[in-house]
Amino acid sequence: MIPNKIWRTTLLIIWSLQLLSQNADSIALRKHFNYFLTKSNCYKNLEFLSTKIESRLSGSPGAAKAVAWAKKAMYEAGADTVYLQPCMVPHWIRGEKEICYSVNSKTKQKINYAICALGNSIATPNNGISAPVIIVNSYSQLDSLGEKNIKGKIVFYNVYFDHTHLSTGTCYGETVTYRYSGPSKAAKYGAVATIVRSMSSINNNFPHTGVMGYDTTLTKTKIPACAISFSGADELLVQLNANPNQAIHLKMSCQMLDKELSYNVVGEIKGSEKPQEIIMAGGHLDAWDNGQGAHDDGAGVVQAIEVLAMYKKQNIKPKRTIRAVAFMNEENGGAGGKAYFEDTKKNNLKHIAALESDAGGFSPRGIAVDTTNGAYKKVLSWKSLLDPYFLQFIKKDGHGADIGYLKEIGVPLIGFEPDGQKYFDYHHTADDTFDKINKRELELSAGVIGSIIYLIDIKGW
Amino acid sequence: MIPNKIWRTTLLIIWSLQLLSQNADSIALRKHFNYFLTKSNCYKNLEFLSTKIESRLSGSPGAAKAVAWAKKAMYEAGADTVYLQPCMVPHWIRGEKEICYSVNSKTKQKINYAICALGNSIATPNNGISAPVIIVNSYSQLDSLGEKNIKGKIVFYNVYFDHTHLSTGTCYGETVTYRYSGPSKAAKYGAVATIVRSMSSINNNFPHTGVMGYDTTLTKTKIPACAISFSGADELLVQLNANPNQAIHLKMSCQMLDKELSYNVVGEIKGSEKPQEIIMAGGHLDAWDNGQGAHDDGAGVVQAIEVLAMYKKQNIKPKRTIRAVAFMNEENGGAGGKAYFEDTKKNNLKHIAALESDAGGFSPRGIAVDTTNGAYKKVLSWKSLLDPYFLQFIKKDGHGADIGYLKEIGVPLIGFEPDGQKYFDYHHTADDTFDKINKRELELSAGVIGSIIYLIDIKGW
Repeated sequence: MIPNKIWRTTLLIIWSLQLLSQNADSIALRKHFNYFLTKSNCYKNLEFLSTKIESRLSGSPGAAKAVAWAKKAMYEAGADTVYLQPCMVPHWIRGEKEICYSVNSKTKQKINYAICALGNSIATPNNGISAPVIIVNSYSQLDSLGEKNIKGKIVFYNVYFDHTHLSTGTCYGETVTYRYSGPSKAAKYGAVATIVRSMSSINNNFPHTGVMGYDTTLTKTKIPACAISFSGADELLVQLNANPNQAIHLKMSCQMLDKELSYNVVGEIKGSEKPQEIIMAGGHLDAWDNGQGAHDDGAGVVQAIEVLAMYKKQNIKPKRTIRAVAFMNEENGGAGGKAYFEDTKKNNLKHIAALESDAGGFSPRGIAVDTTNGAYKKVLSWKSLLDPYFLQFIKKDGHGADIGYLKEIGVPLIGFEPDGQKYFDYHHTADDTFDKINKRELELSAGVIGSIIYLIDIKGW
Repeated sequence: MIPNKIWRTTLLIIWSLQLLSQNADSIALRKHFNYFLTKSNCYKNLEFLSTKIESRLSGSPGAAKAVAWAKKAMYEAGADTVYLQPCMVPHWIRGEKEICYSVNSKTKQKINYAICALGNSIATPNNGISAPVIIVNSYSQLDSLGEKNIKGKIVFYNVYFDHTHLSTGTCYGETVTYRYSGPSKAAKYGAVATIVRSMSSINNNFPHTGVMGYDTTLTKTKIPACAISFSGADELLVQLNANPNQAIHLKMSCQMLDKELSYNVVGEIKGSEKPQEIIMAGGHLDAWDNGQGAHDDGAGVVQAIEVLAMYKKQNIKPKRTIRAVAFMNEENGGAGGKAYFEDTKKNNLKHIAALESDAGGFSPRGIAVDTTNGAYKKVLSWKSLLDPYFLQFIKKDGHGADIGYLKEIGVPLIGFEPDGQKYFDYHHTADDTFDKINKRELELSAGVIGSIIYLIDIKGW
């Protein structure tokens, strides 16, 4: 039996060592945050990406320029190597500005509605579509209405955000199905087009685009699909209430061109002790064509790049290999995420963790850790280190779309979650512009991301 | 001795009752938040106060209209009674738009700087002041420079925010002394005016006003004092570096008029069980004249008013008396806070707690509880109830300026602290306008405030 005194001394030593290590971590994090808050380039980088490069939807000239820019920015941040990882991406273009109007039957006044084509949608015929509108509040209502009520009409999915949800992501999750799957479900009953109420937290006149997909197992007929602004939707309801047979006119000239070769941009600093072990932080480089993609997801890209700079500019050598990834084609296909996954499998690369920031450049709020190994508990044990930097929660599950594919091969995934109340004000609109970014909020969140990558590197699991 | 079994049973019963009570609280809070997120009027009220009433600095016609509006809004929210609590307030006016320029000695080009007079400042002479500028980075530097370097010059306090602070309030706390006390300290050495770098988190061209005070114990000489925008300050530095003897011209026509009678607006719902015990939530109604005072502090006022509505519109009878207070004159004198305190003392009113929201209408982040009794621990025990609503911390100390006077008579004070990263972007500028308010953020914070008031009422201390 070991005497009590020895036990006590041993425990005291372990406790003291833990305290010292905790203190060292705390000092290291403070230095990192000082770097992010006073010397980092993420705000300047985001300004350039958002305002100096034209819109960067996959396949576009802007996307190609963004790839070249990201490569340069990663080298400037201090990457040893930057890879371009090829992927074939869809090349959808919006074409001329969409037109949508109704004519008031009494006053003969034309009422214009702010709409935008949904990504992947086909165009209307050249002379547009004129048809009566049927309001649909749910899929079950769509099914009850059936072909006899829907055939020849434009289906208007009028589904609002449920504002009692505390997470705006939950509001989005509940409604986005009408954007993505609504067109084919309506086409099955003979609808000639669909309009979806914008997935928006606020009432303004910006229509929110986003991807849709044709489900050819439901119907071979493809119909044009667009989103209408919140206030436009309200005005349309007023018109339809006054005259339920009101026709509207819709014209869209969007087009799916041939696939294009594009790239993920992968920058890395080789690990000094375990170079074969990779810790990755990423965001996506492509963005919807209507805005500047500042929050979605220029922010995530510049934050990931700044993780490299955190090491290089402070002259810290990571034990493991640190990667920043600017994914291509998150918005309308996911080709970049899949290519990264395939490359990881093919080359048998070992990822210790993959983190994605794709929820805007706002103040830190939390992270989600999606893993079956002990990583969640380990990350949770760092919470007190990150508390002062506004990290309110560390929860299980949830991650970014691009890194999601890596789950299949057991990579611990981390989704960064900034304060999300405003995200769906800007998301997929012309209002997602650089002036909506607050420098400190962007930098604080970059600091949290950098600190988590740093802690994983020095502690592992 | 009580048998173990009885102990265990008793403990189990207590634990079950606690769990049931916790669950009932949780359900009640969820209902309150549903009210705030879907039915509350705080956003509409703030729109009216910010955009339909002219600027409302103490003593102004706008302030008088704001008092009348607040009275009406409190009745509409469901107050039984609304009192106007008189206080004599300073009536300072800005006068004509301020002018500040230098003339480049080589190009003869005139360079205009965005400045604004500080509240309470005297005007320049009618034809302005032209004098060389001396840059001062700290009070100790001011003292070293002394009369021989300062006399006849304009002192430019060029003190930046230290961005390594995580709280922007700390940045403000460190620098605001140059705005408030800098003029008299410089006048003591013969300065003819002072310019202070705006207390700002970001680099833009909005000058930030705010109160200053003449310290007649230092010197009887009063000199004009203004703030220069962040980018204006940078440009001025460029000019002064090129030509240290560069004179600038300054013209301000602000004026202190006679004091005016104004009011705090106090609305209350009488308690059903302990009407003599008051729980108060407040914000301040006056705002700087250059902007709309949306974040500072229209937000706090409409949130306080909405606490009354939370009770009335949900048909809940509070046990104690619930008060909403719209304080007058927080910005340049504190007459309203003092009057409230004097009234409380005179009438021997018993306040269980006083809460103030005066840090912007942003997402919830935390509360500060300033009390010597057990209230802090009690509030801390409610943290898990408020966690889901983005309340990250409950800390000791810190409160609003208006309720601060009540500390003397032992009232537990609570300062509401929303996410503060952007507050000093807008604070005291023409950019503090209603369009900078996010509806959900304002409502969530109102929900946290309402929930705390609710918990204090049902649980007391």
